[in-house]
Amino acid sequence: MTEQTIQRIRKFTEDREWEQFHTPANLAKSISIEASELLECFQWSDEDYDLEHVKEELADVLVYCRDMLDALGLDEDDIVNAKMTKNEAKYPADKAKGSNKKYTES
Amino acid sequence: MTEQTIQRIRKFTEDREWEQFHTPANLAKSISIEASELLECFQWSDEDYDLEHVKEELADVLVYCRDMLDALGLDEDDIVNAKMTKNEAKYPADKAKGSNKKYTES
Amino acid sequence: MTEQTIQRIRKFTEDREWEQFHTPANLAKSISIEASELLECFQWSDEDYDLEHVKEELADVLVYCRDMLDALGLDEDDIVNAKMTKNEAKYPADKAKGSNKKYTES
Amino acid sequence: MTEQTIQRIRKFTEDREWEQFHTPANLAKSISIEASELLECFQWSDEDYDLEHVKEELADVLVYCRDMLDALGLDEDDIVNAKMTKNEAKYPADKAKGSNKKYTES
Repeated sequence: MTEQTIQRIRKFTEDREWEQFHTPANLAKSISIEASELLECFQWSDEDYDLEHVKEELADVLVYCRDMLDALGLDEDDIVNAKMTKNEAKYPADKAKGSNKKYTES
Repeated sequence: MTEQTIQRIRKFTEDREWEQFHTPANLAKSISIEASELLECFQWSDEDYDLEHVKEELADVLVYCRDMLDALGLDEDDIVNAKMTKNEAKYPADKAKGSNKKYTES
Repeated sequence: MTEQTIQRIRKFTEDREWEQFHTPANLAKSISIEASELLECFQWSDEDYDLEHVKEELADVLVYCRDMLDALGLDEDDIVNAKMTKNEAKYPADKAKGSNKKYTES
Repeated sequence: MTEQTIQRIRKFTEDREWEQFHTPANLAKSISIEASELLECFQWSDEDYDLEHVKEELADVLVYCRDMLDALGLDEDDIVNAKMTKNEAKYPADKAKGSNKKYTES
């Protein structure tokens, strides 16, 4: 996301004085609710989906994720790279190749 | 997210030949599942959460969102800005200020 | 659910003094979290699921639904029948037959 | 749920020939989607909720759970009691009393 888009999201929240509602817990609920609306695009069929609707719901998830990064003062690249380091160790490429089984699950 | 982080996520998927599982429907499920794990950090308390756990679960949501953008060939800034234009029209700042009610809901 | 099973669920909560955590909001989160764990059984495949795991996760959803009925003093048959009356009016059998489209959506 | 209510739910599905859409995977998505709509009643506040709305969304979750029990040929009391036996062993009353920590988590 460009800095310009991030600033637009922040200004949207500030102009409406909605920071007061953006507690981490409320944003976690909001991300989950929007993720479920995205899932609803695929409720009865995996293939027959409305792309415009998918784009809107995915955008909603991304906006609330940005709100949560801001509410907690987190850097997106920092947390994603820290998690990718864990994922790379958990799923070695040679063992995980082509399999959707989480073979290391205990 | 920087281009470098995006490339790292793509390489992770490619090295494991996991693109085959990354259908839009499967990724919608995955985003919803990870969003719910994020919510679980706040299941019994809004305030008493483990920040390190929150960071990991939020990162998981962001990684799957990136996978979905890639699977559908979407540009993050494009879809977010298109949605923000809608949000700004739906919630005029002067009417929505300080209220969490969606007053335009029909 | 038989009265005996309902009593067992209630006793489980009481013996652990967990009623204090069973606010409607916390139970809504809990139902959503368990529903997502049920969904996880189908994350990468619609057909290749572990039935024993499905049964456990569906049971978890049902137990938290029962907790929520209790927390709000609701009768399951009352609320389900009230909703079925709405559903029957919203989706007339002759128009909805064999279609998964919600044709009345505005 | 009484046998009469269960029969009403089954007849609703049969009259619309909707059994074809009631695959376990689709019903898992549906339960998750409705659980999220229930959560939406508490999105910005734990206390300020619309009870009538809560009742409708909880009913939706229960109806789809019933559909899933039917689709898989499961008995509600069987799966709930099997899970309660596990829960009782996992959370001994004397250790879990009054604590929302899952002390046995590894």
